[in-house]
Amino acid sequence: MRILVQKYGGTSVAGLDRMKQVEARVKKGLAEGFKVVVVLSAMSGETNRLLGLARQWSANPDLSECDALVTTGEQVSVTLFAMLLKDAGIKCRSVMGFQIPILTNNNYGRARILEIDNAKLLDMLNEFDVLVVAGFQGVSCHGRLTTLGRGGSDTTGVALAAALSADVCEIYTDVKGVYTTDPNMCSTARKLDRISYDEMLEFSSMGAKVLQIRSVEFAKKYNVPVRVRSTFCDDPGTLVTQEDELMEDVLVSGIAYDKDQCRITVFNVMDCPGVAAAIFSPISDAGILVDMIVQNTSRDGRTDMTFTVSRTNLEKTLEILSRDNKDIGAVEVQHDLNVCKVSVIGVGMRNHSGVASMMFTCLRNENINILMISTSEIKITCLIEEKYLELAVRALHDAFGLDRAGGDRVC
Amino acid sequence: MRILVQKYGGTSVAGLDRMKQVEARVKKGLAEGFKVVVVLSAMSGETNRLLGLARQWSANPDLSECDALVTTGEQVSVTLFAMLLKDAGIKCRSVMGFQIPILTNNNYGRARILEIDNAKLLDMLNEFDVLVVAGFQGVSCHGRLTTLGRGGSDTTGVALAAALSADVCEIYTDVKGVYTTDPNMCSTARKLDRISYDEMLEFSSMGAKVLQIRSVEFAKKYNVPVRVRSTFCDDPGTLVTQEDELMEDVLVSGIAYDKDQCRITVFNVMDCPGVAAAIFSPISDAGILVDMIVQNTSRDGRTDMTFTVSRTNLEKTLEILSRDNKDIGAVEVQHDLNVCKVSVIGVGMRNHSGVASMMFTCLRNENINILMISTSEIKITCLIEEKYLELAVRALHDAFGLDRAGGDRVC
Repeated sequence: MRILVQKYGGTSVAGLDRMKQVEARVKKGLAEGFKVVVVLSAMSGETNRLLGLARQWSANPDLSECDALVTTGEQVSVTLFAMLLKDAGIKCRSVMGFQIPILTNNNYGRARILEIDNAKLLDMLNEFDVLVVAGFQGVSCHGRLTTLGRGGSDTTGVALAAALSADVCEIYTDVKGVYTTDPNMCSTARKLDRISYDEMLEFSSMGAKVLQIRSVEFAKKYNVPVRVRSTFCDDPGTLVTQEDELMEDVLVSGIAYDKDQCRITVFNVMDCPGVAAAIFSPISDAGILVDMIVQNTSRDGRTDMTFTVSRTNLEKTLEILSRDNKDIGAVEVQHDLNVCKVSVIGVGMRNHSGVASMMFTCLRNENINILMISTSEIKITCLIEEKYLELAVRALHDAFGLDRAGGDRVC
Repeated sequence: MRILVQKYGGTSVAGLDRMKQVEARVKKGLAEGFKVVVVLSAMSGETNRLLGLARQWSANPDLSECDALVTTGEQVSVTLFAMLLKDAGIKCRSVMGFQIPILTNNNYGRARILEIDNAKLLDMLNEFDVLVVAGFQGVSCHGRLTTLGRGGSDTTGVALAAALSADVCEIYTDVKGVYTTDPNMCSTARKLDRISYDEMLEFSSMGAKVLQIRSVEFAKKYNVPVRVRSTFCDDPGTLVTQEDELMEDVLVSGIAYDKDQCRITVFNVMDCPGVAAAIFSPISDAGILVDMIVQNTSRDGRTDMTFTVSRTNLEKTLEILSRDNKDIGAVEVQHDLNVCKVSVIGVGMRNHSGVASMMFTCLRNENINILMISTSEIKITCLIEEKYLELAVRALHDAFGLDRAGGDRVC
């Protein structure tokens, strides 16, 4: 049995006209001899509408009830679409997460998939040509409804593709694929034909909305080929797949950025063992993700500690720091909201040096001051003033030759 | 464990203000030492909104998908209400039909409950003080979502009360209880304090919206005391319960009517064995309920057959009759839409004669012609011209002394 998984996002299921386009894609899959598993999100705006209702009803909506509430969004999408397909004579049925079941932990609001038993799915695929599966949702081992977090339908699609050993998981969205950088910011941005899982992970972690980061982790773990493409045109999109030699020949695949950043500096902390733990443990315990961290060289047994958190976490972080002031001996905390991150990403970096210096040189040429630097195996990130973001992205895109097919070859 | 089941209809859950009133009732139940099982309908208009969506998407919406679609209405009600109760510090959770499970057959759109295993419910009641259960929905033995038909939340409430041996099942609605007749038609209509299951069945079968007929059958079968009352006032409402001597002392409990009727006459059918079956079997096979049937005395080996069906079924019935004309030898079919049924109902009839003649005399006194008559053990029904309906209801209500507490005593 050859199986094709197709996931469609909220803009693709926003109304009857668009669903007709989705129907045509499903039929194409059938005509090519596939059984098709269609994963749908809620219609655009529906999840927000439901969460808005929850906030009207409760000052602090219970997470487990919120999950059971918002799963109705996908339930409406899949039942309506199944009706449409049945009218077209296609043997199909809707499938909710709990009917498979997609078993998750009970971390409501951002549950993780524990297990998908494919036996029942394969039974259904023997009986039906198309399964229309509600994305984003699962069920805990106690039978409570759960959701996989924003963008979780991507993960549903990839997880089902993995469980069913599908030929490919197609992620349909309103963009043509993965770009070398944000086309809204840089007019010469170019769609990539292929990208490695690791590069895609870095793009996703920088806030690129094209794929939920967990779906990429899943795809990498189970080696599921993922094709990101547009519902509304025939472009083959971008294939997210295993790294190969061709990819490594390209020094840099793209430029990513993240504006949801703020910088916090704790001055004059005692420079002794355990001080970093004393600062960051309570922040981490509060569920706040600390991103870049820099510690200055110590003077007189004292040092400064600088780090970034997302802007929504600023207030909470400052509150924790002021509470724990005494333990770390800090005398002053400052923060800066006018910052952003810009990164160059590429698996080619693994084998080739010189990318960092090219990046720093490029920024210097534009007179952009670097506030912080962090590196990973395939990414170099600089924190800069937010007002220089667009300039930096364009200059880096240009400097690494990303407007040209194939990008800049190894120096 | 003392358990109270409370079912609230669509008007009771229509918005936050009203749900606050429901919250107050739930708290009252808790204060009296009960564990409370709250059964909710979808918010007013929500089921119709969802069915409207289905009709937009499909010319002939698939019934199984429709069921999975409309169950989201109750899911939204129960999750929002559970949030509200949790904010008030009450230990509670939402429960969907499939989570209990409420096992039904797969007759989508009007499924029947097959089984409710109370073990899981009792477990939940040990952990939580209040369960907020989605009404109207169940799950088939194949795991597909089903609904119990319009008004099915009443049945959910009564079935849960039966499964849990609850003290009482309270059905909250927007009227004070069960009346001797429709108060909108007869200003002297009086609320009944008690009514027997059989009488309630007759009222419900006449289209009285106060309780779904299947819920009354369920209540009778499992002897569940049901109290019909208003969400919006403190009146104790009407208790639907087992028949007792006091009830039998009352000759007539109420006057019911049904405007959704039309009369069909098949003239000149051959008067021979099997002709009734030849006429009614294909109608029944088409799922159409035939109500009153009268066969005239035969003349010259031919007779006329008259019966009533609901108005929505008229067209279909006429089509069937014209198709099967030859088998029954009928030469002419006539129909009349300007008719309605009026009934007097009372368990007192079982032991006392004279009710029929009182009814006929009353109608004659008002110059109302009787078109057809049918009787059951506790009900006498006359088909009359629709224009006389209001006059007939008022005259009968008066003739049987229903405006006076206790009604007319046995003659």
